Amino acid sequence: MSAKPNIAINGAGPVGALLALMLAKRGYAIDLFESRPDSRQTNIYQGKSINLALSDRGWKALNAVGIDQEIRDNAIPMYRRVMHDLAGNLTTQPYGQEGQAIWSVSRSGINEQLITLAEQQDKVRVHFSHRLTQYNFDNNTALYLNDANQQINHQTDIMFGADGAFSKVRRLMQELPKQRISYSLQYMPTSYIELSIPAGENGEHQLDKNALHIWPRKDFMLIALSNPDGSFTCTLFMDLEGPLSFSSLQDKSQVSDFFHQYFADAMGLLENPVEQFMAKAAAPLCLVHIYPWVVNDAVALIGDAAHAMVPFYGQGMNCGFEDCRVLAELVDQYEDNWPEILAAYQLERKENGDAIIELAKRNFTEMSDKAGDANFLLRKKIEAEFQRRHPELWVPLYSMVTFSPDIPYKTALSVGDIQNDIMDQIMAMPNIHECWQDDGVYRHLFALANQRLS
Amino acid sequence: MSAKPNIAINGAGPVGALLALMLAKRGYAIDLFESRPDSRQTNIYQGKSINLALSDRGWKALNAVGIDQEIRDNAIPMYRRVMHDLAGNLTTQPYGQEGQAIWSVSRSGINEQLITLAEQQDKVRVHFSHRLTQYNFDNNTALYLNDANQQINHQTDIMFGADGAFSKVRRLMQELPKQRISYSLQYMPTSYIELSIPAGENGEHQLDKNALHIWPRKDFMLIALSNPDGSFTCTLFMDLEGPLSFSSLQDKSQVSDFFHQYFADAMGLLENPVEQFMAKAAAPLCLVHIYPWVVNDAVALIGDAAHAMVPFYGQGMNCGFEDCRVLAELVDQYEDNWPEILAAYQLERKENGDAIIELAKRNFTEMSDKAGDANFLLRKKIEAEFQRRHPELWVPLYSMVTFSPDIPYKTALSVGDIQNDIMDQIMAMPNIHECWQDDGVYRHLFALANQRLS
Ligand SMILES: Cc1cc2nc3c(=O)[nH]c(=O)nc-3n(C[C@H](O)[C@H](O)[C@H](O)COP(=O)(O)OP(=O)(O)OC[C@H]3O[C@@H](n4cnc5c(N)ncnc54)[C@H](O)[C@@H]3O)c2cc1C
Ligand SMILES: Cc1cc2nc3c(=O)[nH]c(=O)nc-3n(C[C@H](O)[C@H](O)[C@H](O)COP(=O)(O)OP(=O)(O)OC[C@H]3O[C@@H](n4cnc5c(N)ncnc54)[C@H](O)[C@@H]3O)c2cc1C
Repeated sequence: MSAKPNIAINGAGPVGALLALMLAKRGYAIDLFESRPDSRQTNIYQGKSINLALSDRGWKALNAVGIDQEIRDNAIPMYRRVMHDLAGNLTTQPYGQEGQAIWSVSRSGINEQLITLAEQQDKVRVHFSHRLTQYNFDNNTALYLNDANQQINHQTDIMFGADGAFSKVRRLMQELPKQRISYSLQYMPTSYIELSIPAGENGEHQLDKNALHIWPRKDFMLIALSNPDGSFTCTLFMDLEGPLSFSSLQDKSQVSDFFHQYFADAMGLLENPVEQFMAKAAAPLCLVHIYPWVVNDAVALIGDAAHAMVPFYGQGMNCGFEDCRVLAELVDQYEDNWPEILAAYQLERKENGDAIIELAKRNFTEMSDKAGDANFLLRKKIEAEFQRRHPELWVPLYSMVTFSPDIPYKTALSVGDIQNDIMDQIMAMPNIHECWQDDGVYRHLFALANQRLS
Repeated sequence: MSAKPNIAINGAGPVGALLALMLAKRGYAIDLFESRPDSRQTNIYQGKSINLALSDRGWKALNAVGIDQEIRDNAIPMYRRVMHDLAGNLTTQPYGQEGQAIWSVSRSGINEQLITLAEQQDKVRVHFSHRLTQYNFDNNTALYLNDANQQINHQTDIMFGADGAFSKVRRLMQELPKQRISYSLQYMPTSYIELSIPAGENGEHQLDKNALHIWPRKDFMLIALSNPDGSFTCTLFMDLEGPLSFSSLQDKSQVSDFFHQYFADAMGLLENPVEQFMAKAAAPLCLVHIYPWVVNDAVALIGDAAHAMVPFYGQGMNCGFEDCRVLAELVDQYEDNWPEILAAYQLERKENGDAIIELAKRNFTEMSDKAGDANFLLRKKIEAEFQRRHPELWVPLYSMVTFSPDIPYKTALSVGDIQNDIMDQIMAMPNIHECWQDDGVYRHLFALANQRLS
């Protein structure tokens, strides 16, 4: 291995592209392989793509490589949740303190931007339409199939699997006989389809564009995130099977009744929801755990390949970007000693990956059920007020995860559990709905928090 | 598909061989494929093999096909646990009521017997040295490699994966894109090696042969099961990594000190334990979960392939045999309607598989740590006494799992949790170590059990 080993990255999704850029800036020669054709030249997305909420962990990583401003130019800040109840009444809940926002970006848009930025580096070669099919772990040689069905061998020193939740690198690792690799891939009952709300007549947004809109219906929910062109990308999350599910809604009139019953106030806005629902196959959501993330000091997983999670905390991509930032810092710290870099990377990231997978799983109920609940909203208000009074003692869980990139996910998870206990006690105080602004409440909260969290 | 579809079984371990026998007796033509050569002709086991405890679920399945007596001829009943403490003192604990036993059998011995019995059926063809490498799920065609490295295609109607914890059928299923197969394979920290105690000078057993011997040392343990030839097969279970582990014991003097310190009373009996320890690679233990067990109404998993567990409840093979018995009953019930048979099989067995995986995992502590503990022993004594008084109300968890094949594993798990709560309360009674035989104790126990368990 030369001083600067050659690095191959499999998968040019958002994480693979950002990793290529970061490592190229540190002088590494990078080969970035992607099974799909170049979406900037073909139109595989046909102008459609899911939207993602980018938040402070993602921004911190983008900032570390100096491209946050370019990305922000195509992003829309969302300062609050707006919940739509069955009758069409709206409830608003700020995401954080004044001015704090999560940002709506299109997955394809940010991905293309990152690939373009990576390509601008001399040392990055991007190979589209190259699908990894085999990997020889003894000599680090990958076999790719291109779109002409030709086989291409590529030898490397270091290989990253950034190829998403169904990572081929990971599945090939799992088969290694002597490595004792534990893994799990769990499909959730919930699946999803994308819908959309077009721009209004004059290109304007038909709902508040600076909010993430939620129609929480307990076992299922619809959400909407804004695009710069005035449209919204919506996602309907619902069980695949069961009494009320993607499978149970079979004919057009059932689907139409379903939408009118549960999403009446959105019916004037959504673009052919019934036809869309009937035409689309619901996409699965799954959780991935694997350990180790690194084998032979040479092959490592990153992003969804290492820790796919459900999207209910809006953290999948943010976590993958944080993986990249941490890895890049370790490259600097360990001065190109890759066995050490990769060992430290795994040690640092694995537990945090597990923590955010767990938090995201729990958050479905929070979004789909509790989001509309008066107790839940009050609880959040009390927490926000207490944070204002004692910012050194209390950052609400959502804010730790979303706005506090210096707090590791695993800390957020464990502190969040303690906060939850404490808030159960506060919410059990007599007449809390009337007296929640009283100083006594905050003195009690202070005593509890001071004892258990300081 | 004809009235009696052709059936292929991949893997001629104990479960695959028993399944072949059971289905052949129902008139099915069976092809049984096994990657290893025929152990009856080669000596791949070199006279050595692990020993297994066969218990009532296993016996019930063997009885259903009329071969329990033949198997019992080579099995030794173990009526009790004998715990060896650090000073060599022995404590005895019966496994069940008077006369109840688990039976020591050699894995290779029972496997060979079952293969011979299966072969005696006209309709069973056994193909040794055939390793499954690919499977086409669209037309149910398997590709095997034989020992001459030739490729053999075999088309079937129904395919069972009985190919163990690292099942190839399962790994090929997992790759099916549209089936949404959730799976996990988790390596445990604990690994194991086999050791042995030879027969005495006159061919006699050097320890009580009708007991399972345990040297419980909390984080690790040694066990010994008797063989008909006077020897004992021993297993040392210990962590692979860590302060005291297979990895930490590197040189001969360390290993020797370890054995003398922890297993002093066995040192005169064990055959070259230090050399054996140094020469052998510790084998892994793992848990496997997968769902679904059946795809395309045609390919199904059974035995360890579906539900590998740790061996601490002695149930892996017993559970696999029970899979076979239940399946055979469903074949009778649904009269060769295989889509229904397989759906009912999965519905019936999946939850039970999960339950025994969980029970087995919990039992490591019970065997390695608590087995020597006075509280634990008293607790078992009280339970046994209460069972004697109220057999309709109380079958201890171990007995439900081991001696009660009519109680499903999942019931044992849930009832066991309630029993555990109740026994915590009983053990918290003042002076329980002195007064445990008083009627008052059993009246209190009756009241609790009657309320929660009847
Ligand atoms: C409905 C939904 C909503 C979400 N919302 C959010 C959100 O609000 N915020 C957030 O942070 N995250 C969100 N996520 C998660 C986010 O989309 C992922 O975490 C992120 O895309 C992961 O990036 P990645 O680069 O690791 O993997 P991917 O985006 O999956 O990219 C993997 C790349 O590898 C390529 N590839 C796959 N196999 C091969 C192969 N064999 N050879 C070569 N290339 C291959 C693929 O074509 C793809 O380009 C959401 C996800 C979903 C499904
Ligand atoms: C240390 C230890 C102690 C145990 N103690 C007990 C006990 O006391 N009681 C108990 O009930 N259970 C016990 N078990 C568990 C028991 O050994 C297993 O549950 C049992 O062997 C499972 O049987 P099986 O036929 O499903 O799988 P296996 O026994 O694993 O047999 C699978 C067969 O498939 C073959 N095969 C694998 N891959 C292929 C392929 N690609 N093509 C063709 N053939 C293939 C293998 O060669 C093998 O013959 C113990 C296990 C261990 C490790």
